[in-house]
Amino acid sequence: MGRVIDLADLEAALNASPFHRFLGLRLERAARGEVAVAMAFRDEFLAGPENPYIHGGVIASLIDTAACFAVIAGVGRDVPTLDLRVDYLRPAGRERLQAVGRMIKGGRTVAVADVEVLGADQRAIAVGRGLFSTKE
Amino acid sequence: MGRVIDLADLEAALNASPFHRFLGLRLERAARGEVAVAMAFRDEFLAGPENPYIHGGVIASLIDTAACFAVIAGVGRDVPTLDLRVDYLRPAGRERLQAVGRMIKGGRTVAVADVEVLGADQRAIAVGRGLFSTKE
Amino acid sequence: MGRVIDLADLEAALNASPFHRFLGLRLERAARGEVAVAMAFRDEFLAGPENPYIHGGVIASLIDTAACFAVIAGVGRDVPTLDLRVDYLRPAGRERLQAVGRMIKGGRTVAVADVEVLGADQRAIAVGRGLFSTKE
Amino acid sequence: MGRVIDLADLEAALNASPFHRFLGLRLERAARGEVAVAMAFRDEFLAGPENPYIHGGVIASLIDTAACFAVIAGVGRDVPTLDLRVDYLRPAGRERLQAVGRMIKGGRTVAVADVEVLGADQRAIAVGRGLFSTKE
Repeated sequence: MGRVIDLADLEAALNASPFHRFLGLRLERAARGEVAVAMAFRDEFLAGPENPYIHGGVIASLIDTAACFAVIAGVGRDVPTLDLRVDYLRPAGRERLQAVGRMIKGGRTVAVADVEVLGADQRAIAVGRGLFSTKE
Repeated sequence: MGRVIDLADLEAALNASPFHRFLGLRLERAARGEVAVAMAFRDEFLAGPENPYIHGGVIASLIDTAACFAVIAGVGRDVPTLDLRVDYLRPAGRERLQAVGRMIKGGRTVAVADVEVLGADQRAIAVGRGLFSTKE
Repeated sequence: MGRVIDLADLEAALNASPFHRFLGLRLERAARGEVAVAMAFRDEFLAGPENPYIHGGVIASLIDTAACFAVIAGVGRDVPTLDLRVDYLRPAGRERLQAVGRMIKGGRTVAVADVEVLGADQRAIAVGRGLFSTKE
Repeated sequence: MGRVIDLADLEAALNASPFHRFLGLRLERAARGEVAVAMAFRDEFLAGPENPYIHGGVIASLIDTAACFAVIAGVGRDVPTLDLRVDYLRPAGRERLQAVGRMIKGGRTVAVADVEVLGADQRAIAVGRGLFSTKE
């Protein structure tokens, strides 16, 4: 069973992860079953010299995290990811991204969360969906 | 249309990406439509202090990259990811991972690639599948 | 390139498919990039004698169709499905279902559509997402 | 908890479903965590008069069923589908299809199964992956 995490502890839990610190994630908003997570641009995110875009893996990481924290904000404890799906809608440049995660199911075995990633212009960069284990 | 990348250029293309360098990816093997990519462990990959496991986003990034390079090794040029799906089978600890990617379809509009991620004990940590745009 | 299908022809296109007729699909609403498709219950949909629920394949079929027609309603011609993902949120009994499909991306290579399936009580039974080829 | 189903009962369990009977499914082979399911062509499967191909929903249904029965053959009881993903590789005509399902993880919360659908020429038509609840 995952560690208990209250809404008030969500920011500390986000910042406690070394990988989240590499990504520079910041909890912008949290409510029951819903979070907004911001990610500032850094050069290490770039896909390549001829691809001045944020690597798809960085965006998948942001989606995994926002989905996971939406579920934590919904069920009140840490949950492992079972599976993750990401659809890339358009490239992201050297820009700050925001991921909005919403839990759409919170059952006793699994939870499902949806994420939309917005670019600096507030248009969608990617969408994602993840399944998380809530079994105690 | 994606930049032409020959099999001989694959390693240079992999290393040219700042994000691949952060991940410490190394091309171990490449053939037509198939690659093996290794990722050494680093502390920044950890999910958290109470979760001494590699973050799911790191594994998704490894899968995206191995799938993408399997397709590059199959169609001979750079391809953007359209969508990505990852199934996490068991946690990965402080260990070196290897991702084996295989192109299973290489069409004129899209290509599909499968990836299996193996842990230090050669057992599967995760599997993934990605769709890539091959439209010229 | 897919056959041209105007909004006015959408219902005829839906009904022209033998499989849609088996499913008993009915176009309830159509606008640019958005459709609502209803499916009346029939006994052949049941998963089993001890599972008096609608088979997951029937729900996947409804989602594929609603997503596809949302894209047709968005780009104006027939499109083949590239991939399909379905999350089952709760079982559906002997009830009429409604699938609401919305195109969230309509590009020159691919389109992406989201679907929500509602039960008789208007609560979500399943959600899905599909990728379609729009290459001419 | 799902009903107990032994390997010897697998064929009866498959045939007990009204939807499987509509699809004309037949269990060709079963071993621990692995099944092969055949589906004979019928006209109701067609996508449309100008699309003399098997509807994607029919193929998704075949994949859902083969994945589910691979898991039943692995864990010994009925399991509900949590999510399903299908990649369509090429169209299927008026032909008999065979789906080979293999359980790749059988845990205490979830199981994962892979499916490959073969056409009459033994080439792959589609691949799929599903997640199933094994929680007792």
